[in-house]
Amino acid sequence: MRAVDIIEKTKNKIPLTEEEITWFINEYVNNNIKDYQVSSWLMAVCLNGLTDTETYYLTKAMLNSGDRIDLSDLPGIKVDKHSTGGVGDKVSLVLGPLAAASGCTMAKLSGRGLGHTGGTLDKLESIPGLTISLDEDRFKKQVKDIHLAIAGQTQNLVPADKKLYALRDVTGTVNSLPLISSSIMSKKLASGADIICLDVKYGSGAFMKTIEDASKLSEMMIKLAKMDNKKAVAFISDMECPLGRAIGNKLEVLEAVNCMNGKGPKDLEDISIEIVGYMVYLSKIVDTIEDGRNIARENLKNGNAYKKFLEMIKAQGATISDFNDFIHVKEIIPLPAKKCGYIEKIDALTLGVSAMKLGAGRERKEDSIDPDVGIVLNHQIGEYVEKGEALLYIYKNDKWDDSIIDDLYSAYSITKNKIKPVDVVSKIIE
Amino acid sequence: MRAVDIIEKTKNKIPLTEEEITWFINEYVNNNIKDYQVSSWLMAVCLNGLTDTETYYLTKAMLNSGDRIDLSDLPGIKVDKHSTGGVGDKVSLVLGPLAAASGCTMAKLSGRGLGHTGGTLDKLESIPGLTISLDEDRFKKQVKDIHLAIAGQTQNLVPADKKLYALRDVTGTVNSLPLISSSIMSKKLASGADIICLDVKYGSGAFMKTIEDASKLSEMMIKLAKMDNKKAVAFISDMECPLGRAIGNKLEVLEAVNCMNGKGPKDLEDISIEIVGYMVYLSKIVDTIEDGRNIARENLKNGNAYKKFLEMIKAQGATISDFNDFIHVKEIIPLPAKKCGYIEKIDALTLGVSAMKLGAGRERKEDSIDPDVGIVLNHQIGEYVEKGEALLYIYKNDKWDDSIIDDLYSAYSITKNKIKPVDVVSKIIE
Repeated sequence: MRAVDIIEKTKNKIPLTEEEITWFINEYVNNNIKDYQVSSWLMAVCLNGLTDTETYYLTKAMLNSGDRIDLSDLPGIKVDKHSTGGVGDKVSLVLGPLAAASGCTMAKLSGRGLGHTGGTLDKLESIPGLTISLDEDRFKKQVKDIHLAIAGQTQNLVPADKKLYALRDVTGTVNSLPLISSSIMSKKLASGADIICLDVKYGSGAFMKTIEDASKLSEMMIKLAKMDNKKAVAFISDMECPLGRAIGNKLEVLEAVNCMNGKGPKDLEDISIEIVGYMVYLSKIVDTIEDGRNIARENLKNGNAYKKFLEMIKAQGATISDFNDFIHVKEIIPLPAKKCGYIEKIDALTLGVSAMKLGAGRERKEDSIDPDVGIVLNHQIGEYVEKGEALLYIYKNDKWDDSIIDDLYSAYSITKNKIKPVDVVSKIIE
Repeated sequence: MRAVDIIEKTKNKIPLTEEEITWFINEYVNNNIKDYQVSSWLMAVCLNGLTDTETYYLTKAMLNSGDRIDLSDLPGIKVDKHSTGGVGDKVSLVLGPLAAASGCTMAKLSGRGLGHTGGTLDKLESIPGLTISLDEDRFKKQVKDIHLAIAGQTQNLVPADKKLYALRDVTGTVNSLPLISSSIMSKKLASGADIICLDVKYGSGAFMKTIEDASKLSEMMIKLAKMDNKKAVAFISDMECPLGRAIGNKLEVLEAVNCMNGKGPKDLEDISIEIVGYMVYLSKIVDTIEDGRNIARENLKNGNAYKKFLEMIKAQGATISDFNDFIHVKEIIPLPAKKCGYIEKIDALTLGVSAMKLGAGRERKEDSIDPDVGIVLNHQIGEYVEKGEALLYIYKNDKWDDSIIDDLYSAYSITKNKIKPVDVVSKIIE
């Protein structure tokens, strides 16, 4: 087999066999095929696509390029959750404990933030003492003991994805349905869960800009799970505006903590209850999804989710269990509204980029982050703001860029007419 | 500027500016942009194309990546000729001397053969003592003295093309109109001629399989010449069957020598006269193309072209001037016809590959060639063959592959009906 023949086939829209795809991926991981051949193939995939079957072969080849976590010796049905990434997306911080408190077993591997989107690992690591580096034994023991662990990927999980993703990042080949879906699903399938809940975001702050694109990606990922005899459900959710009110690592942890103490915000509560409802139902704890949602709603209110959260962070080494004096910044700057009215739009991308400029996120992988800085919205979409009242608060330390103020203003649109807030979860695909 | 943004633009069919293309090519030549980024871009170009203007910017950037040969201090109009490559294509060996004998000044840089196609340099080097390595001074002096030189490319002519071509070869990105046309024209424009005659072949043994593709490539190359204030003419010519009767380096030199001594073959005579006719006309030696053809026809018959050929090879160091005892092989094997009839088809690709297997050509760039081996057709298309009579003769030394005999038979189709031979030049585009 020759790499160039495989490239030519995809270039000419001739489907590849499983043998060809497996060979190509394995030889790449073993450094026998060069980056310049793989990037040429990746661009052919971006522009010509792959068939569903080819996408599955690719996912399988990536999945088999490294270790798979075997959770089969842990009792019961294991659930996992993945978000395609957004601004203010702290769902995992609430959902993980809530699912475990509701009877599910959650073994979750998370990622770091890049660009305008945050990452669960960075948020967790903002909690003093907490480690996300759990080896497989410790990870499995924690899941067995408290039914919940959220950790970073171990080194040898899907090495093909690591190599491919790094290459895609610098060769303009990130945006491609088969490449995105195989990248996500190879990691999720390697993580060993039986049920995979996918939070697929669309809109300004998301990777997929439209609900149609998010739906297509969801359908592909669900198919890939099915081909691997796993169950996936996709929750298509709105990322035109940030999720909740807080953007920034500690600020989001605090918002999650407040949410688990019954203080909202509503959108974060809603999406957590919706997904956990499904998890409880699919784990066969109840007979209907509505029953699942009721259990989730109850465990968010009665403090059980928060208790589970404290249990998890303690198990992972956290040295605090009180979040009253959690955030320290040099300055909190309000952004006063220039006119009164109902908030019609808060552009998620702009807020994500501004938070990144404050140091809450990374422009490049190697950048360090400041866990304390960020942005807190004073109002969400549909709320009324008086002229001069704060639209949001900027939590800043040393990092600053003069464009931030103008950028933040440009993210808003305020109207005289009442706005009907939309549900955060737009659509569920099974 | 970032390479990834340029890749994304071409991926999304957003035209690049001259500044962007120039920067991308220069940074690649200077090793500041990686092969894996360039190959991704090349694939995007293959699948999305480039606009004519972008293709010109690319050609110009490649052209300016190295030295340009300045022929302006030589008197008169300088002509050049390029063939897109075929099987048995010894046109330059006849056409060069014929053009010079007819009053044109020809400064031609040639290439080597690869795969099933031959290269003029390999054919010339099969003449004992002859060198194709002329430095610019010697090249120009020879052109000044005898109005004719055919040499290899010097090191620093269009280095961007050398790098890009090597990369395209291993990344499935050879076949692309903008990439092929910019590769050819950057070299031709850098060579300094005023008039560029393009022999664009189509059919089995050519790179372009159809007359339509050959025409599109021709139109693009003519446009590129025009944008650079040069004149190009394209001769779309048939490469379904081999050109002439000989395939193999010395065999082709000998056929060219015979042609310049009035012994045909007709297709080689025709194409040489057709192109030289244009060259004489475009060099303003005569007022009509027909007058140009007449001068060419005369100089092929009266021995002037052959005299010029001997002058050229002598100037380039040849130690022989008599081709009577030129070829030495261990064996000459006839391929007897299995039935009688008119020869309808001789597949050029099959013959080219067979000649390569005998050692006449290179499978890889680093392979060495055997100058004496090859194939000589006993009959061309349209000629009648008796059963048992030789279709062709195989000139072999040590290299052999048992599949050759079957392959050669498979290249033929013989019919009871008379065949009307087609003109070798199908179409001329200016």
